[in-house]
Amino acid sequence: MPSVSRKGQQMPESPIRKLVPFAEKAYKANKTVYHLNIGQPDIKTPQIAMDAVSMHSLEILAYSRSEGSEGYRTKIANYYKRNEIPVEADNIIVTTGGSEALLFAMGSIADIDDEIIIPEPFYANYNGFATASGVKIVPVISKIEDNFALPPISEFEKLITPKTKAILICNPGNPTGYLYSKEEIKTLAAIVKKHDLFLVADEVYREFTYDGYEHYSILQEESMAEHGIIIDSVSKRYSMCGARIGCLVSKNKQVMATALKFAQARLSPPTFAQIASEAALGTPQSYFDNVISEYEQRRNTLIRELQKIPGVIVGVPKGAFYCIVQLPVKNSDDFAQWLLESFDLNGETIMVAPAAGFYSSPGVGLNQVRIAYVLNEDSLIKAVNILKVALEQYKG
Amino acid sequence: MPSVSRKGQQMPESPIRKLVPFAEKAYKANKTVYHLNIGQPDIKTPQIAMDAVSMHSLEILAYSRSEGSEGYRTKIANYYKRNEIPVEADNIIVTTGGSEALLFAMGSIADIDDEIIIPEPFYANYNGFATASGVKIVPVISKIEDNFALPPISEFEKLITPKTKAILICNPGNPTGYLYSKEEIKTLAAIVKKHDLFLVADEVYREFTYDGYEHYSILQEESMAEHGIIIDSVSKRYSMCGARIGCLVSKNKQVMATALKFAQARLSPPTFAQIASEAALGTPQSYFDNVISEYEQRRNTLIRELQKIPGVIVGVPKGAFYCIVQLPVKNSDDFAQWLLESFDLNGETIMVAPAAGFYSSPGVGLNQVRIAYVLNEDSLIKAVNILKVALEQYKG
Ligand SMILES: Cc1ncc(COP(=O)(O)O)c(C=O)c1O
Ligand SMILES: Cc1ncc(COP(=O)(O)O)c(C=O)c1O
Repeated sequence: MPSVSRKGQQMPESPIRKLVPFAEKAYKANKTVYHLNIGQPDIKTPQIAMDAVSMHSLEILAYSRSEGSEGYRTKIANYYKRNEIPVEADNIIVTTGGSEALLFAMGSIADIDDEIIIPEPFYANYNGFATASGVKIVPVISKIEDNFALPPISEFEKLITPKTKAILICNPGNPTGYLYSKEEIKTLAAIVKKHDLFLVADEVYREFTYDGYEHYSILQEESMAEHGIIIDSVSKRYSMCGARIGCLVSKNKQVMATALKFAQARLSPPTFAQIASEAALGTPQSYFDNVISEYEQRRNTLIRELQKIPGVIVGVPKGAFYCIVQLPVKNSDDFAQWLLESFDLNGETIMVAPAAGFYSSPGVGLNQVRIAYVLNEDSLIKAVNILKVALEQYKG
Repeated sequence: MPSVSRKGQQMPESPIRKLVPFAEKAYKANKTVYHLNIGQPDIKTPQIAMDAVSMHSLEILAYSRSEGSEGYRTKIANYYKRNEIPVEADNIIVTTGGSEALLFAMGSIADIDDEIIIPEPFYANYNGFATASGVKIVPVISKIEDNFALPPISEFEKLITPKTKAILICNPGNPTGYLYSKEEIKTLAAIVKKHDLFLVADEVYREFTYDGYEHYSILQEESMAEHGIIIDSVSKRYSMCGARIGCLVSKNKQVMATALKFAQARLSPPTFAQIASEAALGTPQSYFDNVISEYEQRRNTLIRELQKIPGVIVGVPKGAFYCIVQLPVKNSDDFAQWLLESFDLNGETIMVAPAAGFYSSPGVGLNQVRIAYVLNEDSLIKAVNILKVALEQYKG
């Protein structure tokens, strides 16, 4: 019997995969499980996007252009311009989710064994795309004590080797919720400029910023025109995760020509989803105002309740809808499993994502979990109370 | 300025990419261009699939499961059973087009520098997926004189090295239209069994067989349970290329567990497209009967007309909707460009795909083109007449 590839064996599993059987056990035991572990928002998709698909009049569901339809790309460029990011349709390739944009970016800038520096904790699937591409992730630790701010330049420079091709950041961050300041982006721009690297910014949570803070994009930095690559997606912006539409944005012509070849090989991004995404660009500002204030309230509630629990450490994230929470436990993998398997409070329990999967340095983050505030406030309050009682009972 | 990866530089361009600027020139000159160069059928998508999307009642366009929805996978399994391919939902991972299934298959079975043997001419994008995966394609030539039948076993065995991981076939073939016989599949099964390789079969044109011939799938061979991997897609079957839904099918548990990790990294296949694809499984047999008889007639017309042209050699393909045509020219790249740039017959010309891009051995297929019969009969007759007159005038 032929065996699978080493690469395939090395492909990481998602950090919550191990927990799925225990979640299923919890369902079977008729427990209610509050899902704090996932990035699937409970927010409604804008009606305008859903209607555009309902009202489609296609007779042949044909391939679109590999780089995405001209009309849609032009409208995305206008969206960026409204966000003070000066790009044109030519600087945009429509992809099948931000996921595919990440894969195209890695393939376009890095060869086998090349290195990409990423502040950790980071979005766990970066590991999968790096493994699939044969690229090595070099982590630089950002600390919960610093609320996950950008590590000092010296920490980056220590890690730069001839094989380093890029620095990749996620802004605002999943799983940290950290929003980089303009100064931090300028610092990063200076490093990549000095060492002739690419700066890849996963900005899929761009809209989700709180307390009046504004997102500052790497492509607002003029000096990043040749160095910057934005990864973007409609998944979270319009609560359209199932569309599978994202894009790769760069003003570097060589990068775009290269990424286009990856795009051509897979023919085209999904057509219905492009119809929905194009229409979604017409979503009124009030939709975002409501969504942002909903998330801000949820965050406030979540953090306030978490801070009441003895031994729990959590910062105040300024963006996205996640936070990393340090718990008074030794091993959050074990704790998360125990929550599902052996604990309930009046028939209810919670599912959290153990944070070790978001770190690539071994042994880091073992006492942390990621919590996504994709539930309404009442559920969040109940969920945090469950966590509190569970921590009192847990002997890990 | 940082530069792109070597891998990116090596990514092949599509065989017709070079012609696109010349096609645009032809449009500007107000020429009518008959497109014989593409695999985008002009057949209507089944209404049942389009209606399912129009009538969707989703409020949140959420991620589906990474392996595809349980309901859809169960129905696909039933489709296979109806086609005498004994598989269950567990043996199926829904992918974003057959394209992604190819990428997952290569990643799951081959490491950097591993080799996959493919009879050439082959679907040009295999090159792109192989380059993206760092895998080496080793071609074995199938000949126009033999109507592109399976090359003798000895030709395969000459090429097998310790790095060989699989044989990949396309059945029925793009670009040849060749349909492998049951005996040929058994021959392939014996080779991969003997050398402990995988047999990957791209069966996206399964339904398109003519003259009463039936498709024989590699998974109808019991001995291929652990060795066989099917690549499939709704793109051509239901003329739904823009859906971007395909699947990877294997009874090898290790392969499925590995491919699933690639699927999890990219989260999920597109949701609207899965709704359309699930509904498409209810397409009545009469749809296929009509489509197949339409293609069969087109093929008959095309081949009959082509055979009238002096110096043109073409076989009679039994499947898919392509054929390779040998022309009395030295360089079909140059001829294809000339057709668009310098020739017209009463304001009309044709666009064909030069065949060299479908070969990986250099210098082979230079006098061949691929013709797709995705136009109606009248247009095909006109197009072949244009080819005839063009060949008379061309001095290449
Ligand atoms: C930081 C980050 N980047 C990229 C993605 C990929 O999302 P998608 O492929 O749905 O656009 C996600 C999804 O959760 C994410 O959190
Ligand atoms: C032989 C073959 N395999 C795979 C594909 C990929 O198709 P899709 O990704 O649309 O399923 C095609 C498309 O033309 C093809 O001809």
